[in-house]
Amino acid sequence: MVKYDAQLDAIFTALAHPARRAMLARLGTGDATVGELAQPLDMSLPAVTKHLKMLERAKLISRSKNAQWRPCRLETAPLTVVSGWIDEQRKVWESRLDRLEGYLQRLDRKEKKKR
Amino acid sequence: MVKYDAQLDAIFTALAHPARRAMLARLGTGDATVGELAQPLDMSLPAVTKHLKMLERAKLISRSKNAQWRPCRLETAPLTVVSGWIDEQRKVWESRLDRLEGYLQRLDRKEKKKR
Repeated sequence: MVKYDAQLDAIFTALAHPARRAMLARLGTGDATVGELAQPLDMSLPAVTKHLKMLERAKLISRSKNAQWRPCRLETAPLTVVSGWIDEQRKVWESRLDRLEGYLQRLDRKEKKKR
Repeated sequence: MVKYDAQLDAIFTALAHPARRAMLARLGTGDATVGELAQPLDMSLPAVTKHLKMLERAKLISRSKNAQWRPCRLETAPLTVVSGWIDEQRKVWESRLDRLEGYLQRLDRKEKKKR
């Protein structure tokens, strides 16, 4: 649970910046080098590297260890973790709404019997 | 676009803390006062209030203006915004994988013809 929490913390923190989301969107179309990621964002290489480190920490991207230009690759698993977390929350609130609806229907039937 | 980005920034920042996620999970089961939210988290009221402010800023919760105890309520729309954003990303990378698969199949057919 603590590990799952730490994982969600890292993912949400990484996603909380438009430049990092733009990089992920770019990597969705294919692997890219740091230079290629920096170009449309009009950002210095050190600034891009800093953002990439946060994405790497959250395991949202991986970087090739061998190639000299170390291209970045999107890793989709953490986004699936986020979807899973939202689905869990949705189940809870939807079951509450279902219970509420059931209660209101029973109330309605009782009222109709009284008349 | 800037507004959407700012909205996503606020939502992801708010979700990037286990206590705030625990509060949202609790509110999924029904409205709660600050005291009720503080209790299972073993947290001071000022600490809880600080977290609630971040959730309010992201519009993940709303608070009743009238009742003296101002109960907190889960607002589900921002989580739907996050789901939507992830679905957008997924569409991009899945269409890339489809193209890649198509390319590999064409390559495979060419190889078979050669033999």
